[in-house]
Amino acid sequence: MNEELIKELIAFREERNWGQFHNPKDLAISLSLEASELLENFQWKTSEEAVSQKRADIADELADVLIYAIYLAQAMDLDIKDIVRDKMRKNEAKYPVDKAYGKMTKYTEL
Amino acid sequence: MNEELIKELIAFREERNWGQFHNPKDLAISLSLEASELLENFQWKTSEEAVSQKRADIADELADVLIYAIYLAQAMDLDIKDIVRDKMRKNEAKYPVDKAYGKMTKYTEL
Amino acid sequence: MNEELIKELIAFREERNWGQFHNPKDLAISLSLEASELLENFQWKTSEEAVSQKRADIADELADVLIYAIYLAQAMDLDIKDIVRDKMRKNEAKYPVDKAYGKMTKYTEL
Amino acid sequence: MNEELIKELIAFREERNWGQFHNPKDLAISLSLEASELLENFQWKTSEEAVSQKRADIADELADVLIYAIYLAQAMDLDIKDIVRDKMRKNEAKYPVDKAYGKMTKYTEL
Repeated sequence: MNEELIKELIAFREERNWGQFHNPKDLAISLSLEASELLENFQWKTSEEAVSQKRADIADELADVLIYAIYLAQAMDLDIKDIVRDKMRKNEAKYPVDKAYGKMTKYTEL
Repeated sequence: MNEELIKELIAFREERNWGQFHNPKDLAISLSLEASELLENFQWKTSEEAVSQKRADIADELADVLIYAIYLAQAMDLDIKDIVRDKMRKNEAKYPVDKAYGKMTKYTEL
Repeated sequence: MNEELIKELIAFREERNWGQFHNPKDLAISLSLEASELLENFQWKTSEEAVSQKRADIADELADVLIYAIYLAQAMDLDIKDIVRDKMRKNEAKYPVDKAYGKMTKYTEL
Repeated sequence: MNEELIKELIAFREERNWGQFHNPKDLAISLSLEASELLENFQWKTSEEAVSQKRADIADELADVLIYAIYLAQAMDLDIKDIVRDKMRKNEAKYPVDKAYGKMTKYTEL
């Protein structure tokens, strides 16, 4: 994540004296709630209908998910690029191309 | 998000021929599932206990959330920096400092 | 919910001295986590594929959702039949047949 | 679940011609969304604060969770009492009293 964006998000939170609420557990709850609000745009609809009718709402909720992800990473002193790269290394090992090609199966069942 | 990171994630997906599964609705479902897996680390624990005992797992699940967020943004041709900045503008309007200072109340109740 | 079933669930919890963990917030978190585990059975699949391949897992996770719902109702002294009937009355008012027939639209948009 | 309650819920759905939307995948999504709306009442609050301030909202959302659980069980021809009892049998085996007493640990770690 862009350093400047993270600074703006921290400043937004400090200006409003909201740091007191941002413990990791409640941030994790908030991240989950926003992910549900994003998913709600697809309720009762096909993927195409939702993308066509609710693009702006989806963008807003996706932004909320990213904002809480940034706050949680910052609260736990995690570097976003590092943790994503670490997870990608693990995924490459769990899902080798020869076994996983064309199949969206959990690695435990490969 | 760093351009290079996004390219690596797309390459990972293409190598495994997984693009066929990545429609926005299933990506939104996946994002929600990973957010729950992240939250599970805090189940029955205080925030401090979870952070102290489950740091590595939390980092992994947060990475999964970010990975699906990147895939969804890419699938819908959304720019992550732009949507986050747009949402921050809206949040500043919904939560003016003078009204929201020290209070974590939904803007509809401010 | 059958009175006997509720008694068995409370007994199960008491035998293991788990009542200390069952505060409403953590029960609500648990309910959400189980709902996600249920949804995971449908990830990357059509509804028919999931029902055909994962019926037993779906039944188990649905049972987990119901178990936590019962624990939460009991922790907050809520009667399941009463709250469901109250909500149905509200839904009938929000979604009158003449307006809602054949349309799965949020009542705010009817 | 009381047979009469289930009949009322099916009638409500049929009167509005909503059966067409109630495929198991979208019902599972809806169940997850309602579980999140229930959890939202606990966001940024302690368990006691939420129960004290948001009792009516929590009751409504818990009812929504139960309603979708009933619709999903009916759509998949699952008997609620049976699946809950089956799961309780499994839980008793996974969490024997002598091992699980006073500990809220995942059975894989007992």
